Amino acid sequence: MNHIVAFAGGVGGAKLAHGLALACPEDRLSVVVNTADDFSLYGLHISPDIDTVTYTLAGLANSDTGWGLAGDTFVTLEMLRRYGQDTWFWLGDKDFATHILRTEALRRGSTLTAAIRDLATALGVDAQILPMCNEPVATLIETPEGVLEFQDYFVRRQHVDEVTGVRFDGIDTATLSPEVSAAMTDSDVMVICPSNPIVSIGPILSVPGLRNRLRESEVPIVAVSPIVGGQALKGPADRMLASMGHEVSALTIAMLYRDFLSGIVIDEQDAALVDRIATLDVAVHVTQTVMRSDDDRRRLAADTLAFAATLTKRSVEK
Amino acid sequence: MNHIVAFAGGVGGAKLAHGLALACPEDRLSVVVNTADDFSLYGLHISPDIDTVTYTLAGLANSDTGWGLAGDTFVTLEMLRRYGQDTWFWLGDKDFATHILRTEALRRGSTLTAAIRDLATALGVDAQILPMCNEPVATLIETPEGVLEFQDYFVRRQHVDEVTGVRFDGIDTATLSPEVSAAMTDSDVMVICPSNPIVSIGPILSVPGLRNRLRESEVPIVAVSPIVGGQALKGPADRMLASMGHEVSALTIAMLYRDFLSGIVIDEQDAALVDRIATLDVAVHVTQTVMRSDDDRRRLAADTLAFAATLTKRSVEK
Repeated sequence: MNHIVAFAGGVGGAKLAHGLALACPEDRLSVVVNTADDFSLYGLHISPDIDTVTYTLAGLANSDTGWGLAGDTFVTLEMLRRYGQDTWFWLGDKDFATHILRTEALRRGSTLTAAIRDLATALGVDAQILPMCNEPVATLIETPEGVLEFQDYFVRRQHVDEVTGVRFDGIDTATLSPEVSAAMTDSDVMVICPSNPIVSIGPILSVPGLRNRLRESEVPIVAVSPIVGGQALKGPADRMLASMGHEVSALTIAMLYRDFLSGIVIDEQDAALVDRIATLDVAVHVTQTVMRSDDDRRRLAADTLAFAATLTKRSVEK
Repeated sequence: MNHIVAFAGGVGGAKLAHGLALACPEDRLSVVVNTADDFSLYGLHISPDIDTVTYTLAGLANSDTGWGLAGDTFVTLEMLRRYGQDTWFWLGDKDFATHILRTEALRRGSTLTAAIRDLATALGVDAQILPMCNEPVATLIETPEGVLEFQDYFVRRQHVDEVTGVRFDGIDTATLSPEVSAAMTDSDVMVICPSNPIVSIGPILSVPGLRNRLRESEVPIVAVSPIVGGQALKGPADRMLASMGHEVSALTIAMLYRDFLSGIVIDEQDAALVDRIATLDVAVHVTQTVMRSDDDRRRLAADTLAFAATLTKRSVEK
């Protein structure tokens, strides 16, 4: 096995990406990360999922929250509050350094891909962390209260709104970056991390051309279900799936990805779903998928890769 | 006395400006501040003298250094260092909030004057803090080693270089802002604070039209000498004056400003200079000018205003 491409959103995806980095030579790993949550705050370009993956792979993540930097302080934010700013988005002092440098790089004409590469490299990350595209894309959440920007829905309103639909503004003009394209071409296996299928993996799959590349790929593509025992381990994926008319289960994850998926890793709690998933022509592996420690991450990653190695690409007609 | 206009650079000027704010109704005070030290760092617009004046008037300045904010921490800077940045310029976490918001305001099309007004207002400063102009101007320091940018000379190289000349890049296209112009028109007295005459007051006086406005003004204009006992109380003004061929004394301050100056406040240590200064047709007031406490600031400011009130504008032919 030479090269792994993982697709990830924030905290849950970052955990498995970290496991993959621990389970195999880290420089053989590329993580394609959702950037449709990116937004601008105080004039700074914030990339929440990218940063969560980067900090996690660098071993610097706040292990209590899963996002942000361990031991960070909030002095700048407190001063912004004193200046009368609405400080609804939690940004630490260390974290500000990331946003300041990324913003500066973009203003100097760097691509998002290059800006993120330089930051991750400086933090000692050997894996390649790739934004899903270089163009700005913005997830818009449709709710009974109206259309909300993603961070407004997710952070400010703490994802309590019912989600009736999701749109990715700007996705039509997004393009597969040379780096994402090359990583996919070079991959021997691709892993869909246990991230929200609608708002984390969804935008990545919506980058024009990317989903077709997955469909046409000849390497095994395996997903790890973010739904365990009928619930999302983190975040609103469960409520979001339900309000959009889906069954809240690993079966739905397999259905949402079935057009390109070789296999899915589901939790022991969901072993009863095996037969139903098998009808989708998706192979199933049952294991303990909840990652509470670095060991859990490494073990689940190794288990997922071993499972993938047993699979050949599912029949092309699927 | 209705309205005071003070002209100031950084620490020394900020102290007297603070004294003026304490000695009279603060909202009657406008401080015109040097911005030729402004520069861009990590993509942020830094205005060192403006911030020193603002923090000092807000009662938030670090009293040990005279610049920066009391109790500030340096977590962001430490992270920037971790990212491989050269962190030669000391920026605190609270301080970053200022730079982030000013930069954002400028990028949104605000004038520097408006951006600074909003920040100072949010910190409860009732005085009007005015940049000397809205256009970018950059002090360049000519040394035997070549031409240095101001902060390179001042901070990075700790002003050890011999200064053979000073230029203000961009000054030709700078203009007197409506706010500075109005403040001068409305003033009943103008005060040149004890700031470096070459690189703090010098740029302000070089804004096209400003020096003429001082010459033509009919209100008393008094300076407080930053040179006491043949030395600058802070910074390289003494060495700079010497290397540019000037006597290092309050007399030189009076000479540099004599075309518009009504009077000068000098320190008791320099009482022997009274007769020589009088030959310049500049009135002299001798007092204790070293400001070690808020009381010193208030007293010197009140003393300076009382002295100014005894003066009529010096004869126009001067």
